[in-house]
Amino acid sequence: MTSSLTPVDPPQLHQNPAFTQGMIVPAGPILFVGGQNGAGGDGVLLDGLGAQTEQALRNLLAVLAEAGTDADHVAKLTIYLDPSVDPAEGYAATGAVWGNRRTAVTVIAVAPARPGALVEIEAVAAIPTR
Amino acid sequence: MTSSLTPVDPPQLHQNPAFTQGMIVPAGPILFVGGQNGAGGDGVLLDGLGAQTEQALRNLLAVLAEAGTDADHVAKLTIYLDPSVDPAEGYAATGAVWGNRRTAVTVIAVAPARPGALVEIEAVAAIPTR
Amino acid sequence: MTSSLTPVDPPQLHQNPAFTQGMIVPAGPILFVGGQNGAGGDGVLLDGLGAQTEQALRNLLAVLAEAGTDADHVAKLTIYLDPSVDPAEGYAATGAVWGNRRTAVTVIAVAPARPGALVEIEAVAAIPTR
Repeated sequence: MTSSLTPVDPPQLHQNPAFTQGMIVPAGPILFVGGQNGAGGDGVLLDGLGAQTEQALRNLLAVLAEAGTDADHVAKLTIYLDPSVDPAEGYAATGAVWGNRRTAVTVIAVAPARPGALVEIEAVAAIPTR
Repeated sequence: MTSSLTPVDPPQLHQNPAFTQGMIVPAGPILFVGGQNGAGGDGVLLDGLGAQTEQALRNLLAVLAEAGTDADHVAKLTIYLDPSVDPAEGYAATGAVWGNRRTAVTVIAVAPARPGALVEIEAVAAIPTR
Repeated sequence: MTSSLTPVDPPQLHQNPAFTQGMIVPAGPILFVGGQNGAGGDGVLLDGLGAQTEQALRNLLAVLAEAGTDADHVAKLTIYLDPSVDPAEGYAATGAVWGNRRTAVTVIAVAPARPGALVEIEAVAAIPTR
């Protein structure tokens, strides 16, 4: 499996170990993943930001796997966080599931439309060629 | 015209008849549609969520057609809804124009920047090959 | 360098000189740029909407250049504006850096998650072939 994404980090921009400024997806099929929230397979939201963040990422990993790709081929995440929560707490909750992978990212302080959802995560990913 | 999008729905995730968790766009040109709101050809916003939603979708269909594609090639919608409106009412308003097509989707409770706009819908679509 | 994006503007939609309704990216690699804010190379946010908007666009231009592309190959911008600011003031601030280029665009009135950030701009761009 070739990991063919190219991170883009101009030296004159502030560097952040948590993300890359841009990511190039090579020519080929692209997976668009709709917003994933912290609900389990029964559709019920878990309690609290940490549990919801981990579950949303697990859901995202499941969609990636079903599409024949994985977290190493994610180009960009868009993360919607309820304004009542601490972004740093949300970021801390990603480690166990997402590790320290860097992608391009946008983080917005806004509530997902579903009541009770504290976080929603969507993604764009390349489909690797074998 | 080949309809070549591939929906992605892992069996372990909660299934929802209204959307798919992810959609794969095949290699080829991709159309990015900017946020469409409920304004008619004169630029004036229609009254109410139902009318704005239908018009925004009609505007989206017009952009798709102009690009040589159609609703069946839409991979993902991002729907921004004014926090004052009921998402279920917005969803109900989509049926007449959009039918029961499934795409990947993110729905966020946030006002479009244009005053009076209750809904804004953007899309990513494949361009079918003939 | 070929500029191969195709703007899409159905005649029956309201025409706006500031943006295009859709943009077709040709088959090939695509750059996804994460949200750029108004921080300089030292990571410190500049003061005020005008300065932050110009800096966010300069940061975006730097990412485009590092990826081997440029503003003429941007298909879509998503612009997040703090609800406290005037969108027209933000738009006016783009001229000096962005000129009058038209792309597909979505503008949302929502605060970036980073405290103090009044504007965040993300982009999708084609990588031109030479």
